[in-house]
Formats: sequence, C-alpha cells, structure tokens
Amino acid sequence: MKKSAVAKKFAGHAGSKILVGILTGSPNDLPTVVKVRDTLSELGIPSEIVVASAHRTPDKVLAYLERAHREDVQVLIGCAGVAAHLAGVIAGHTRLPVIGLPLSGGIMSGLDALLSTVQMPPGVPVATVAVDGAKNAAMLAARILALKFPEINLALEAAGKKERARYDQSADEALAKLAGK
Amino acid sequence: MKKSAVAKKFAGHAGSKILVGILTGSPNDLPTVVKVRDTLSELGIPSEIVVASAHRTPDKVLAYLERAHREDVQVLIGCAGVAAHLAGVIAGHTRLPVIGLPLSGGIMSGLDALLSTVQMPPGVPVATVAVDGAKNAAMLAARILALKFPEINLALEAAGKKERARYDQSADEALAKLAGK
Amino acid sequence: MKKSAVAKKFAGHAGSKILVGILTGSPNDLPTVVKVRDTLSELGIPSEIVVASAHRTPDKVLAYLERAHREDVQVLIGCAGVAAHLAGVIAGHTRLPVIGLPLSGGIMSGLDALLSTVQMPPGVPVATVAVDGAKNAAMLAARILALKFPEINLALEAAGKKERARYDQSADEALAKLAGK
Amino acid sequence: MKKSAVAKKFAGHAGSKILVGILTGSPNDLPTVVKVRDTLSELGIPSEIVVASAHRTPDKVLAYLERAHREDVQVLIGCAGVAAHLAGVIAGHTRLPVIGLPLSGGIMSGLDALLSTVQMPPGVPVATVAVDGAKNAAMLAARILALKFPEINLALEAAGKKERARYDQSADEALAKLAGK
Amino acid sequence: MKKSAVAKKFAGHAGSKILVGILTGSPNDLPTVVKVRDTLSELGIPSEIVVASAHRTPDKVLAYLERAHREDVQVLIGCAGVAAHLAGVIAGHTRLPVIGLPLSGGIMSGLDALLSTVQMPPGVPVATVAVDGAKNAAMLAARILALKFPEINLALEAAGKKERARYDQSADEALAKLAGK
Amino acid sequence: MKKSAVAKKFAGHAGSKILVGILTGSPNDLPTVVKVRDTLSELGIPSEIVVASAHRTPDKVLAYLERAHREDVQVLIGCAGVAAHLAGVIAGHTRLPVIGLPLSGGIMSGLDALLSTVQMPPGVPVATVAVDGAKNAAMLAARILALKFPEINLALEAAGKKERARYDQSADEALAKLAGK
Amino acid sequence: MKKSAVAKKFAGHAGSKILVGILTGSPNDLPTVVKVRDTLSELGIPSEIVVASAHRTPDKVLAYLERAHREDVQVLIGCAGVAAHLAGVIAGHTRLPVIGLPLSGGIMSGLDALLSTVQMPPGVPVATVAVDGAKNAAMLAARILALKFPEINLALEAAGKKERARYDQSADEALAKLAGK
Amino acid sequence: MKKSAVAKKFAGHAGSKILVGILTGSPNDLPTVVKVRDTLSELGIPSEIVVASAHRTPDKVLAYLERAHREDVQVLIGCAGVAAHLAGVIAGHTRLPVIGLPLSGGIMSGLDALLSTVQMPPGVPVATVAVDGAKNAAMLAARILALKFPEINLALEAAGKKERARYDQSADEALAKLAGK
Repeated sequence: MKKSAVAKKFAGHAGSKILVGILTGSPNDLPTVVKVRDTLSELGIPSEIVVASAHRTPDKVLAYLERAHREDVQVLIGCAGVAAHLAGVIAGHTRLPVIGLPLSGGIMSGLDALLSTVQMPPGVPVATVAVDGAKNAAMLAARILALKFPEINLALEAAGKKERARYDQSADEALAKLAGK
Repeated sequence: MKKSAVAKKFAGHAGSKILVGILTGSPNDLPTVVKVRDTLSELGIPSEIVVASAHRTPDKVLAYLERAHREDVQVLIGCAGVAAHLAGVIAGHTRLPVIGLPLSGGIMSGLDALLSTVQMPPGVPVATVAVDGAKNAAMLAARILALKFPEINLALEAAGKKERARYDQSADEALAKLAGK
Repeated sequence: MKKSAVAKKFAGHAGSKILVGILTGSPNDLPTVVKVRDTLSELGIPSEIVVASAHRTPDKVLAYLERAHREDVQVLIGCAGVAAHLAGVIAGHTRLPVIGLPLSGGIMSGLDALLSTVQMPPGVPVATVAVDGAKNAAMLAARILALKFPEINLALEAAGKKERARYDQSADEALAKLAGK
Repeated sequence: MKKSAVAKKFAGHAGSKILVGILTGSPNDLPTVVKVRDTLSELGIPSEIVVASAHRTPDKVLAYLERAHREDVQVLIGCAGVAAHLAGVIAGHTRLPVIGLPLSGGIMSGLDALLSTVQMPPGVPVATVAVDGAKNAAMLAARILALKFPEINLALEAAGKKERARYDQSADEALAKLAGK
Repeated sequence: MKKSAVAKKFAGHAGSKILVGILTGSPNDLPTVVKVRDTLSELGIPSEIVVASAHRTPDKVLAYLERAHREDVQVLIGCAGVAAHLAGVIAGHTRLPVIGLPLSGGIMSGLDALLSTVQMPPGVPVATVAVDGAKNAAMLAARILALKFPEINLALEAAGKKERARYDQSADEALAKLAGK
Repeated sequence: MKKSAVAKKFAGHAGSKILVGILTGSPNDLPTVVKVRDTLSELGIPSEIVVASAHRTPDKVLAYLERAHREDVQVLIGCAGVAAHLAGVIAGHTRLPVIGLPLSGGIMSGLDALLSTVQMPPGVPVATVAVDGAKNAAMLAARILALKFPEINLALEAAGKKERARYDQSADEALAKLAGK
Repeated sequence: MKKSAVAKKFAGHAGSKILVGILTGSPNDLPTVVKVRDTLSELGIPSEIVVASAHRTPDKVLAYLERAHREDVQVLIGCAGVAAHLAGVIAGHTRLPVIGLPLSGGIMSGLDALLSTVQMPPGVPVATVAVDGAKNAAMLAARILALKFPEINLALEAAGKKERARYDQSADEALAKLAGK
Repeated sequence: MKKSAVAKKFAGHAGSKILVGILTGSPNDLPTVVKVRDTLSELGIPSEIVVASAHRTPDKVLAYLERAHREDVQVLIGCAGVAAHLAGVIAGHTRLPVIGLPLSGGIMSGLDALLSTVQMPPGVPVATVAVDGAKNAAMLAARILALKFPEINLALEAAGKKERARYDQSADEALAKLAGK
C-alpha cells in the first residue's frame, strides 16, 4: 500500500519494529485516534496509524492487513463511528487480536458505534473498549503485548505507579482546595 | 464461487436472468430470508440466495459480487443480525443499489442490527428496510426494477390490487366476526 | 400545485427532465435537504425540492405526487424529523421507489425519526438512509437511476474516483501533519 | 366508503348517533382495538370501528373521515403499531380531537409506535395514551365527551365508583389470601 | 389556595371564565409553559398558570384542583420533566380531561418525562403530547373545547387558515432564496 | 383507612410494632411484593402490605401515610410499574426514608418504571433499587433500620453468613457437577 | 489511609463525629459531589469527602471503609459515572446503608451510570438517586439518619419549611413577572 | 482460596498449566460460562472456572487473583449480568489482559451488563465481547495467547478451517433443502 498513508513510526525499547497497527476509517477521527498512538508511545510501544475505511476504501484495509501480517505486527486496533464496521471487518481477515474503539458522533452518542463494534458473531471476536476510550485501547494492547514482551510489563508497572501518584496528588490538591474554601 | 452455495434460481417474465442477489450471513437466517425470494418470485422476478458472511467468509462475499457484476445482477440485498455489516460491506464493493434487511435476535430486538445497517458514512448508502421486513426488502427491489422493466411495473400493479382486495376482505371478515358476537 | 412552492430545477446530462422529487416537511429543514439536491446536481441529475407536510399540508403532498406521476419523475425522497411520516405517506400513494431521510432534532437525536421512517408495514417499503444522511439519500437515488440511465452510471463512476482521490489526499495530509509534529 | 368495513354500531344513552370513530391500521390489531369499543360501550357511548391503513389504504382513511365529519362524529381514535402514522395522518385532516393508541409488536416493544404517535409537529396534536392502553383511549374519549354530554359525566362517575369497589375488593381478597397462607 | 400563585387571567370571546388550568411543577419551566397560555390566548381561550409540584407542594395541587372544579374549569394541563408525575397525579383527582406535557431536561432528553407521563395505568388516562410540545398542548385543549364552544371551533378554523398561509409563505420564501443562490 | 386493606402483620424480635410499610399500586403486583415482606420477616422485621394506588386510590395512600406516621412506622417502600409514581408521591408526603421498587411489565422491561421512580426532583429523594429487586428493597430497609435497632444489625450479620454459606455451597455443587461431566 | 485524601470535616449539632462518608471515583467529579457535602452541612450533618476509585485505587476504597467502620460512620455515599461500580463495590464490603449517586458524562447522558449503580444483585442493595442528584443523595442520607437522631429530624423539618417558602416565593415572583408583561 | 470452588482443570498441548482463569458472579450463569471453557478446551487451552462475585464475595475474587498471579495465569475472563462489575473489578487488581463477558437477563436484555462492562475509566481497560458471547470470549483469549504460544496459533488455524468447512456445509445443506422444496 502507498507509504504516504501510514503515519510516522517511532522506535521504542521493544525494538523499532511496529507492534500495533491502528486503523481508522476517517481523517476526521484522527484527533481521538492519535491518543491511542501517544499512549502506546509513552509505554515505548512502536505503532503506526493507517487511514482506511471498511466502506470507502476496503482495498486499502486489505492491503494494510497483508503488509501487517508480513511485517509481523502483533495487535490491530480498529477505530470507527456510527455503523462502525472497521474492527469487525479486520477481525474477519486476521487471527491477530483485534481491539475495537467505537467513536461517538452518531445518533445516541456512540451507542450505535458500540453495538456495531461489540455485537460480533461467534468465531470473530472484537475486544471492544469504551466509546472514545482511546487511552484504554492502547492500555489493552499493552496488557496483551506484556504477556510476551517483559519490558512492556515493566513499562506498564512504572506507568501504573506514575498514574497512581498523579491520581493521589490531584485528589489531594482538589480536596485541599475544597478545604481552603 | 462454488455453485452449491447458491440457491435454486427460477425463471420469471423478465427473462430467466437473475435480477436480484440476496446475501445472508448465516444459514440460520434462511427462514426469514427465503420470504424475500418468495415475494420476488410472486412478482416474476428471478433471484438467487447466497449464504456468505462479511466476517466469517469475506472471500465468499467478494467472489459472489464479482460474479454478480459479470452476470449483470441489478439489485443486491444484504440480510444480517446483531453487528450487521453485510449490507454495508457489499455497498462498499459495488455501485449497484444495495438494500439492507436488519434481522432481529440480538439485544434490543434488532435495534443493533438496524443501526449497524442504516448508519452508513457519506458516499456508501444502504437502502434499509424494517427489522425482519423481508417482504418489504423484496417490494423495494421490485419498485427499483420497475423503473427499467415495464413488466415488473405491471406485476406490481396487479399485486397491489390483489393485496388491496385481500386487505379489504380480511377487514370485512374480522369486523363481521366482531359484529356477530 | 402552486408553482412557487417548487424549487429551481436545473438541467443535467440525463436531459432537463426532473428525475428526483425531494419533499420536506418544513422550511426549517432546507439547510440539510438542499444537500440532497446539490449532490444530485453534481452527478448531473435534475431534481426539485418541494416543501409539503404530511400533517400540516397533506393536500400539497398529494397534489405534488399527482404532478410527479404525470411528469414521469422516477424517484421520490421524503425528508422529515420527529414523528417522521412524510416518506411513509408518500410510499402509500405511489409505486415509485421512495427514499426516507430521517432528520435529527427530536428527542433521542433522531432515533424517533429513524424508527418512524424505517419501520413500515409489509407492502409499503421506504428505503431509509442514515439520520441526516443527505448525501447518501442522493447517492442512493443515483444508484437506482444508474440502472436505467447509463450516463448516470458513468457519472457515479467518475464521482467515486474523485471521492477516492479526495479521501486519499486528506488522509495523507492529515497523517503528514501528525508526522510533522 | 363501503359499509362492510365498518363494525356493528350500538345505541347508548347519549342517543344512537356514533360519537367516537375508532380507526385501526390492520385487522390483526382488532383483539386490542375491540377493548376500546367495549369500554366505550360500558359507558353508553356509541362508537364504530373502521379498518383502514394510512399506508395501505389511505383512500379508505380519507373516505371515512369525510363521512365522520358529515355524520358529526365527535372524537377520533387512531390505533397503530411500529411506524404508527395513522393517528397523525388523521389529525392532519380534521379539527376534531384525535387520540393516538400506540400498539406494541415492533422492535423495542412499542417504543417505536409511541414515538411515531406522540412526537407530532406544532399545530397537529395527537392525544397519546400508553402503549396498548386500549381502556385509557376509551376513558380519555369519555372524559372529553363528558364536557358536552352530562349523561356521560354521570356514566363516568358511576363507572369510577364501580371500578373503585372492584379495586378495593380485589385488594382485600388478595391480601386475605396472603394472610391465610 | 393563595391567589398570588396563580398567573394573570385574560378574557377571551368564550367569556372571561377560565377554561383551562395549566399546572407546572417548577418556576424554571415557565419559559416553555407560558407558550401554552399564549397559544390559548391567541385562540381567545382564557387560561391560568399555576405553579405547584406533585412532589414538593402536593397540597397546592389539591387545593388548586378543588378550586378548578368549583369554578368549572374544563381542561387541565400538567407540565413536568424527569420523573414527571404531575399530569398523572392530577388525572387521579379529577374526571376532567387531563393533558400531559413532558418537558426535556432529564437524562435521555425527556424520554424519561415522556414515559412517566404517558404510561398510565388503566382507568386514569393522560392525553400526552410531544416532549416540549407546548403549542400542541394548547391546540389539543382547543380541539377538545371546540366540541362544546362553537366560537372556539371558528377560532381554530381561522387559526388553521392563518397558519397555512404562513407555512406556504415561509416555504415560498425559503425556496425563492434557494433559487436565487 | 379500612382495616381489610392491610395485610397480616407479624411479630419479630424488634417487638410487634410495624417498622416497614410496603405500598403497592395493584393487587397484580403482590407475587413480587410479598417477597419484600418475606425477606423482612426472615430478618425479624415486622411489616405490613397495603394495596393503594397513587392514581386510582390516592385517598387510600394518604390515609395510610397518616396512620403510618401515627403508629411510628420507620421506613416506607413504594412498589409500582410503568409510570411508577407511587414511591415519589409517598416521598412528597413524608420525611421518612422512602424506598422505590420499580416493577417490570411495561414497555422497555421496566426501564420506564425505573426512570419514573428514580429521577425525582431536588428535595424529594426516593431510594431506588433494581427493577423487580424485591429482596434488595427489604435488605435496604433492614440496613437503614439496623442503624437504630442493634438486633436488626445482628440479624443482618447472621443472614449474611447464612447467605454466604449458601452461595459457597451452591457454587461448589455446580462446579462439582461440571467436573463430574 | 493517608489523611490528605480526606476533605475538611465540619462539626454539626449532632456532634463533631462524621456521620456520612462520601466517596467519589475521580477528582473531576468534585464540583457535583461537593453539593452533597454542602447540603448535609446545611442540615448540620458532619460528613467527609474521599476521592477513591473502585478501579484505579481499590486499596484506597477498602482502607477508607475500614476506617469508616472503626469511626462509626453511619451512611456511605458512592458517586461515579459511566461504568459506575463504586457504590456497588462499597455495598459489598459493608452492612451500612449505601447510597449511589450516578453521574452523567458517559454515552446516553448517565443512563449507563444509572444502570451500573441500581441494577445490583440480590443481597447487596444500593439506594440509588437521580443522575447528578447530589442534593437528593444528601437528603436521603438525612432522612435515614433522622430515624436515629431527633435533631436531624428537626433540621429536616425546618429545612422543608424554608424550602417551601422559597418555592412559593419564586413561584409568586415568576408569575408576577409574567403578569407584568 | 478453597480448592472446591475451582472447576476441573484439564491438560492441553500448551502444557497442563492453567492459562485462562474464568470468573463468574453466580452459579446460575454456569450454563453460559461453561461454553467459554469448552471452546478453550477444543483449542487445547487449559482453563479453570471460579465462582466469585464482586459484590457478594469480594474476598473470594481477590483470593483467586492472588493465586492466579502466583500460578502465572495469563488471561482473565469476568462474566456477569445486570450491574456487571466483575470484569472491571478484576481489571483494577491486575495488569493481565481482562476480557469481559456481559450476560443477558437484566432489563434491556443485557444492555445494562454491556454498558457496565465496557464503559471503563481511562487506565483500566476491559476487552468486552458481545452479550452472551461465550464462544468469542474464549476465541479472544486464544488470539491473545497465540501471540506467545505458537501451538495455540496452529490450533486456531486448524479450528478456523474446520469452522469454515462446517459453515460451507451447513450453507450448502440449507440451500439444497430450499431448492428441494
């Protein structure tokens, strides 16, 4: 597939090999989708973003999947809104774990995207996360990869500690502000 | 594609050529789907049923679409339940009119199938009918074909008169029964 | 019906005859509805917009349908919100293919309009597209007309190629911007 | 309109003139719809049932409305399921009070019928009662008529007392049975 | 009940007697509720607004109902949001026709108010109109009153003609603007 | 209020005084409602069931509340389906804690009852439990009473241990059965 | 648990002992949650706010519950949005009454939080109040505590009178403003 | 934790070590949950079923998680209905990938369980599959494990081929039966 449709890759401590392929159906979704890549990047997990639609450019989806299999990508994430078929279509063309990130924007604030993503028929699972849950799509990919790559497990542990410190601090500050009133 | 996966065809007055391809994602859906074919048959419109899933046998879907284009099929109908991607996937691979028939059975009694079928992105329309509306999927195909094939228009007109007579008679009988009580 | 209630017509390559009648229940809906006409216009398909309500001016709806049949309009599109009866009422008075465009604005962000439009009884189909899916209402009409008018098929093919180039370019640009960050 | 499509009328104490016209879209709905007539009958209010569909026999609906206006019917009740347009279409053709009785049976157990019936545009109100609320459609008609016909007010008062006695007795009996356990 | 909690009354052509009592559960709802009164006023129907809550000031509701019965008010309208009990509670204390106006603002954009208002048990009907359908609550009251007061029927007829002219004019203007582009 | 409308009371270890008043809108609901009483009874908490409807017998509701206040009842439970106003109406007439038990049966399987019960306006809280959650309505009443009556706290503790043993045993048995297969 | 994560306590007339523990899953929810504390404070009920998440800091939740039991806190309130597990998890670790305050913000405007909070399994009740119903969470806690602490009952009575005066005044003012127009 | 609460284990070709821990909140859910284990077993993946509830036996959940971490279980699956907190609570206590299987049975046919499972806050992902999607919960676990254990990848490939043959055969048979009619 055309190189230009694939985003900047970045090298992490698991090597420079891309581990996660993030597909999204529309350029408009990139502000949310880029948070998936950024969260992976913070954990040192190399990923790439591909813009390809199950409906409008199905050939592009298949071309990327072929390359992803060839280059030994480990986890795929499909991001889409409304009649969100992307993750499901990907799952029908691979044996890799596929994560589905439903995006809001349609009627019912993303409930249509959620149902289109999660209600898959037997045999073709999509690991669905919350509507607009970009960070969790990345965290789930990291948990899956951590089974195989010990350095990702360590990165997750460190990130968990940092996150906890941040949570405790913001809680303390917020409560201190309340108390000061 | 393997001949055996395609149902009995039948010759109508528009010639023996298949005009409508009916795809359904699961053999379990056939009791509903066969009503699409039977309604078309009553209108003298030759059709064929193909069992092929957007998720479980995407190659079979594509193979059929190729043949359908080659054999000049005019209208395609995709029937599916829950995360109902079939009609949408078909619409992404053809310029023919695609009718979507959402099937009940999932949570929310088919609302998930309805949203997955109808909420398509700009440029890839699916002409969606009511949940489990097998008869209307066929009637819509007939209305579309009637623009081009005058004999189908006549068949529709005749069917409309027959249907109206049936409606009036069943109304009269039901009211007569009430009055007799 | 009064001439003034019918919008500017425009001549396309399928001749200057109006092929698509677009009915909408309220002048307030015109900003969305005009996108249906504009998309048809880009494909060279002459259409006209009629403002007539199934509830408030049912006579105007019937008067237009009579004229449309007389002038050999081929496809009708009914656009309405909330208790969206317009497309269904039209479908009960014609054998032409009727497309329903549910408009958002009511409670549940258009889910009421969607259900009111799509859940039609057996025998009276409405080809429903996504809530506020003005472009797809036009594209569906074009796919239907393309069966009969080869020049519309060519226009659809050309539009598809242009759309694809636009999609690829906007994807490339968006990803380039991401990479540049 | 054909006489045979109108149910047995019955004379009540407000005279033998029909006061309430009950329209229903399908003979299948009669088991629920007949409860509207029976409740009116218990209050001595003459009514008639008409089977006519907004989609399948719109001419029959209009023909009945014309006759109803001529014969000075006072209240109209439209009963319909799924894309329930009947009451709304009636309300667009009359200045009489129109009661809408949404019937269950579609997806979401009648929520589609409820929304299609109640969410009317400004100027064309439908007085909607509960899904399958046949008794309340009749009771609402009776409350409306009681403003003008004092004998109906007396009938309502008597019915209220009888209903209350029945309620109290069934409550006492049910509690006595519990206590006896 | 305290005089001060009842809004300005105004004399119409049906006499200066209040015909419609409009109850609303919260002062915050007045911007919507006042449209009910204004629509009635345009039809010459005297009405009054009472602020009284089924939950917070049930005594005030009962006190007003007593007075309304004494002063021969003909129709009652209950306006409330979220767990909208007001119309139902009124209907349990009167034999007059009760109109329910569900107000948006809760979760699900008023669907909770709609269900709380319309889903009444057998014997206690509430004539429910669209969520936030202030104009239709008034129009429904007018249709009911027009059965008894011929001058209201004339007012409705005149208003219908004026409304139609307004509709046609706004349609023509909107289409002219489109054509001018 | 008439004695016969109140169910058998029974003496528990907190004395023979009734601590919990259980109101239900319809005799038909008693099969579910009686589970509230039975669960309370197992915990030694005296209660009584009253059949009284917010819509059909509002006087009965008020008469019971007066007696309940006089006899120092501590907690009130309102059980109702569809437009479930009972608990809310009770809460508007008392300062006692009011528990709302929404019952299924309406459209959307009790979601209407849930929203009608829980979405109360500021100042008038209803402590809502799960749809058809009869046992939890009782358990919540017991937790509330246990703050004041130490013997109920002990009963809750004992019941918790017994419940846990039952849970563990049924889990073990079910797993043993699986293992035996 | 770390002192810093617990908000300012304040002494009321029931003594300086904390009676209500308010837990919330995220510092972002504090603007809503602080209204619970403020309402309790107006009633003279000492409370404390704890920021602890069932998912992100489950240890903190358990540590607080241990301390709350030791210090004889009487009522616990769990506030959370989306997959709102906090109140349910608390209820599984205590025999105290637990109030659940679902917060909006997720898809479906808090319906997900409402269902996650209220639909608890038998034996583990959560007393759920309206979505974002901060004031009612406090009022419910006060009603529960008033059974045991007579001074809280008096405070509730006084607050009720004040609230009623405020309601009547705002109603009068709003209606006076209407009348003045 | 007590040995008896853990189901029969079985040795597969990835060794006899348990790779997947399946937790379910209620013995009643076992008929669905056992399909997760059976599907894993067909793929040669050793698993164990644990009955433990986030609300009723939280200690049992934590005890199992401790043992699972000690014994190097790789993937955890939480199965629960209604306010389905189990998977979310597990995800808060582990860094392993957690799959959530929402079970139907509550109001809205499992939509409550779906939302309670999938709508997790940032940082604590649950890989959610379809309501009652027992087979897909297992297939997703297998896809995850196949990244690390090549023999599971082979088993998945073989199972895919077998499944496809079964699909094609059942499609052919169903169509043959149709054709024979």
